[in-house]
Amino acid sequence: MIKYSFKNDYSEIAHPDILSAFTDIGNTQFEAYGLDVYSKEAIELIRTKIGKPCADVHFISGGTQANLTVIGSILKPHEATIAADTGHIFTNECGAIEATGHKVCITKGENGKILPAEIEKLVTKHSHEHVVKIKLVYISQTTELGSVYTKSELLAIKEVCEKLNLYLFIDGARLGSAVNSKNADFTFADIADIADAFYIGGTKNGALFGEAIVITNDDLKTDFRYHLKQRGAMLAKGAVIGLQFRALFENNLFDELAKHANAMTARLADGIEKLGFSFASPVESNQAFPVFPNALIEKLQELYEFHVIIKNITSETSVCRFCTSWATTESTVDEFLRDLEALI
Amino acid sequence: MIKYSFKNDYSEIAHPDILSAFTDIGNTQFEAYGLDVYSKEAIELIRTKIGKPCADVHFISGGTQANLTVIGSILKPHEATIAADTGHIFTNECGAIEATGHKVCITKGENGKILPAEIEKLVTKHSHEHVVKIKLVYISQTTELGSVYTKSELLAIKEVCEKLNLYLFIDGARLGSAVNSKNADFTFADIADIADAFYIGGTKNGALFGEAIVITNDDLKTDFRYHLKQRGAMLAKGAVIGLQFRALFENNLFDELAKHANAMTARLADGIEKLGFSFASPVESNQAFPVFPNALIEKLQELYEFHVIIKNITSETSVCRFCTSWATTESTVDEFLRDLEALI
Amino acid sequence: MIKYSFKNDYSEIAHPDILSAFTDIGNTQFEAYGLDVYSKEAIELIRTKIGKPCADVHFISGGTQANLTVIGSILKPHEATIAADTGHIFTNECGAIEATGHKVCITKGENGKILPAEIEKLVTKHSHEHVVKIKLVYISQTTELGSVYTKSELLAIKEVCEKLNLYLFIDGARLGSAVNSKNADFTFADIADIADAFYIGGTKNGALFGEAIVITNDDLKTDFRYHLKQRGAMLAKGAVIGLQFRALFENNLFDELAKHANAMTARLADGIEKLGFSFASPVESNQAFPVFPNALIEKLQELYEFHVIIKNITSETSVCRFCTSWATTESTVDEFLRDLEALI
Amino acid sequence: MIKYSFKNDYSEIAHPDILSAFTDIGNTQFEAYGLDVYSKEAIELIRTKIGKPCADVHFISGGTQANLTVIGSILKPHEATIAADTGHIFTNECGAIEATGHKVCITKGENGKILPAEIEKLVTKHSHEHVVKIKLVYISQTTELGSVYTKSELLAIKEVCEKLNLYLFIDGARLGSAVNSKNADFTFADIADIADAFYIGGTKNGALFGEAIVITNDDLKTDFRYHLKQRGAMLAKGAVIGLQFRALFENNLFDELAKHANAMTARLADGIEKLGFSFASPVESNQAFPVFPNALIEKLQELYEFHVIIKNITSETSVCRFCTSWATTESTVDEFLRDLEALI
Repeated sequence: MIKYSFKNDYSEIAHPDILSAFTDIGNTQFEAYGLDVYSKEAIELIRTKIGKPCADVHFISGGTQANLTVIGSILKPHEATIAADTGHIFTNECGAIEATGHKVCITKGENGKILPAEIEKLVTKHSHEHVVKIKLVYISQTTELGSVYTKSELLAIKEVCEKLNLYLFIDGARLGSAVNSKNADFTFADIADIADAFYIGGTKNGALFGEAIVITNDDLKTDFRYHLKQRGAMLAKGAVIGLQFRALFENNLFDELAKHANAMTARLADGIEKLGFSFASPVESNQAFPVFPNALIEKLQELYEFHVIIKNITSETSVCRFCTSWATTESTVDEFLRDLEALI
Repeated sequence: MIKYSFKNDYSEIAHPDILSAFTDIGNTQFEAYGLDVYSKEAIELIRTKIGKPCADVHFISGGTQANLTVIGSILKPHEATIAADTGHIFTNECGAIEATGHKVCITKGENGKILPAEIEKLVTKHSHEHVVKIKLVYISQTTELGSVYTKSELLAIKEVCEKLNLYLFIDGARLGSAVNSKNADFTFADIADIADAFYIGGTKNGALFGEAIVITNDDLKTDFRYHLKQRGAMLAKGAVIGLQFRALFENNLFDELAKHANAMTARLADGIEKLGFSFASPVESNQAFPVFPNALIEKLQELYEFHVIIKNITSETSVCRFCTSWATTESTVDEFLRDLEALI
Repeated sequence: MIKYSFKNDYSEIAHPDILSAFTDIGNTQFEAYGLDVYSKEAIELIRTKIGKPCADVHFISGGTQANLTVIGSILKPHEATIAADTGHIFTNECGAIEATGHKVCITKGENGKILPAEIEKLVTKHSHEHVVKIKLVYISQTTELGSVYTKSELLAIKEVCEKLNLYLFIDGARLGSAVNSKNADFTFADIADIADAFYIGGTKNGALFGEAIVITNDDLKTDFRYHLKQRGAMLAKGAVIGLQFRALFENNLFDELAKHANAMTARLADGIEKLGFSFASPVESNQAFPVFPNALIEKLQELYEFHVIIKNITSETSVCRFCTSWATTESTVDEFLRDLEALI
Repeated sequence: MIKYSFKNDYSEIAHPDILSAFTDIGNTQFEAYGLDVYSKEAIELIRTKIGKPCADVHFISGGTQANLTVIGSILKPHEATIAADTGHIFTNECGAIEATGHKVCITKGENGKILPAEIEKLVTKHSHEHVVKIKLVYISQTTELGSVYTKSELLAIKEVCEKLNLYLFIDGARLGSAVNSKNADFTFADIADIADAFYIGGTKNGALFGEAIVITNDDLKTDFRYHLKQRGAMLAKGAVIGLQFRALFENNLFDELAKHANAMTARLADGIEKLGFSFASPVESNQAFPVFPNALIEKLQELYEFHVIIKNITSETSVCRFCTSWATTESTVDEFLRDLEALI
């Protein structure tokens, strides 16, 4: 009997305020294709939040779609992007970027983060027409390993991008968790200053679905709605996402949900640590990667769902991933910790 | 002051039963990526409705995405599809099919319908490697002109497809309206028998958003989830669409909403006709295309929103499009007719 | 027994001066990938010929490859090109442009030529993100119907392109024949002034194979060698094409061969006309399109090969295509005319 | 003053027999698009050589074009290929495979060779729709490091491909050198038995240009000429390549040229070894990779051209690449060795 799933942060439908955003408007008619007033209000709220009154904001259904639409709009046929070898576009999107015609060049990085020196090294190697021309750096904040780039790390990447004439795109599927990390020394405005384009994830932070793409570099704004339409990413009822982001950003709900998810992972990780276990990467957001004995994992899996990310990292242990959400409760975490203690 | 918009059938958020489908489940956790129980139940309901227990059913956010994902999954690089010159993939999807690498070959048709003889003629002309190989016929039911293929028309297209070894894909953005047309002499089961693949539109029939792709031809089923993922069309919270289709198909809501939308257009068209106006194409579904004098159109536009599809079809008249939805009321239609009468 | 084929202008291997260009250099080593001295000399000869010392010139194997590489390098994903409905990219290249992701929007034109008013009309219709954005006009000089744009016709197209912010690309598979047409009132320099990019066809004018892409608009020059490489269009032994174009342009051979081909078609057409036949389009280059009785065609086909382009344009006649080349002799033409006279 | 370039095996124009193949036919007319008698004879000669009377053979201009056209024809949108991390499609073709929409998944291998166990491991990791589906193994024979797969190595790869339902494609840009390697324990017929498709390189073995694609698996034969046309890879004068391959295979010229190139590298490598230098990989074909002191390299570069593949493999030495061709003479090799001896 499974008590709870820690597999991900998109296992529950949506925060009640999101759902009431739909019922609140009744059958009021609205403009199609994202040109409705709710989307416009949501856009203004986001512009204010990031301190960029001129940013372009577009709503889109999901993360893979955001990544392929943005990257596909930026790159010319012979151009390529850099990603960490753990980067979502390289590991988990079924070749979506390549399907738009572009190579994803990878670097090893550290804890899921790309290092500026690696960017420079890779670009130097790609200096003639027998290889692709690197034009974009893709990073995730939080990274796929739950780590969070510091402001100085982001600025160092920005600097190398400017030096090498590269665009910087930040996959913010969990940007809420990143900005609200206890270690975060940056704001939404910093992200908007540093990235040429990024997206703010709703799906993994309490929305029914949906992400907000933000484009701050004027060069990348032109004709973006054409790209949305061509990729099948422009909802007829664009208001459906606009209403959600209005709800997320008008009362600080977005930050609150992210803080809660982070707090639940922190509580979980603290408890796990106290029981004597270590982690494969630092716990900074709403994901923790504890290393558990294989025998313990088997017993835990009878009560809880979670991913085993690296099997047999030693002969007797494996790395697991625990993810908490806006909907995870303290009591669930505490019950898990009691169960864990009982099993060891 | 605009009283009402007849511009389309996706101007209102969603039927209340759709929205309560979300609230009803509270924070119950579900599987990700469309593997949840609600989606599975919705799939079974659709299989029952169409009489195909082995059909593959996949939920997707919108129509353009459905078209490009299905067509892109079927065709090899050198293969092409046929569409009517009014076909949505040819006229209104920003080259989405071409962006997957495939040419859309067009035929003139009649009232938005493709004629079997035209298919044969076009395929005959495409008989060697200097031109694309036609492998798929794309039709819309209802068509973009609001007309509805009869069963014998569909069977005639099917026959020529079988003769020429072509697949048949039906864009069902308004399939509910078609099946519930007063002229419909076919059922959902007939559509499933005739098409190799089709989709059932939710966005234009009361859903918040979402379409159900149905694949009945075994050859086209393989690996379809890979295509969904690669095109950015697999929602993390797939349950969001599954819940909606469960609501639409468990109590016949889908048919009721379509019937209502059709009835509103019929009421509207009857009134318009009684006032002495004619239509550019027969009124069979939830769209009517009246021909109005330009001066009248200008006055009407001060009170109502609607599309002018063909300007100046004569020196003094234009073709307009009026679309009603599941949410249009009789009183709205009647008020429009009173206003129309007053203006002429 | 077939005496001669008038099917096309690429039925004979190559002019002897082309072949001796290879033997003349013995085993002299050269740089790879088109960076050899012969290619560089050929580029300078072409720059001089067209009066554009800063033009970028790239050699490529064939016409379809030239078209797809140039067009694919110019257009962004949501952008499209215009072509005549007889345009080679629309009718004879197996969807090569669509395979690079771009729609080809067609206009009817006249005698194979696009009309400026049609460009404007089409662009006006493509004004929002539900349809592709037109960014390029593709024309062929000579056209696929053997006609030749006059200088004023070209300038009028250029003017509308500038007004609408479109690029102009000229497919010059038979540009030699066009420039050396008896009706030509323009020079190579005019073509280079008017087009943003064009190509000079070698394959159909005496070369073994190969075309010279010329880019005059600076915006389109960037990174073009990457596009060549990525499309598989950069020969390891680029010198093989460079040597041919050096031979074609160092002693005016290119013009002489084109003039000869044109003269042979003129001789042929004059003879045909004197025998009382008419032509489906004006005879201006190295192709003639006589209208012959079907019974005559059958008899002629026992002695000669040629294409029947439009079968049964009347109940008893069809349009044929006769093409002469740099290698067609006067005596062959005269023998054909004697045979024709004998058969009627 | 540079005496000779060992940079590659495509620095000289073509073997005289290739060039006389063109002059020999004078102005004889031939069919277009590879349907000529010379191409047909060449196809028969190749079928005989490989012992596969039913193999499909297609001629194409170059290696990148061969790779992208074959791989692009085999894979469905969500499918990917495996290559060694030194594989030409991964390192040297400007993202040509990705431009057809497909990811290239890499393995480390040994000496440029893929190991069967690596294939199995990689396929096992790619087992669900969040990652691409691996469907093809791409290997080069000779490899990019000059090594040659033995027959048992090839059979082991074939076995794992059959087990995992993968196709095997062999890039034979230097297949002549491989089959004629002193270590080769396989024949052309073995290659044809083992691969589902492969190509025989002409460009690097004495031809002016051109490769022969051979498809032995019936599943991969369908409509291949469409793919050729669509990629711009079908020469109007297809005879130009057909004549060359007829010349290469009618008198065993192909093997003789490859043997000569191999012999020159063997002579060179023997001499280098006797002077006390080692090699980064075994010398088995027409490429040798000696490790030279950096100071020596600088002096050598005043007299000879060659590539430095890995700079500073130790603090004072680098790996160089020396490549000999059908046109390299013994005296050139001996002179190089004398110069080398004088410089150390």
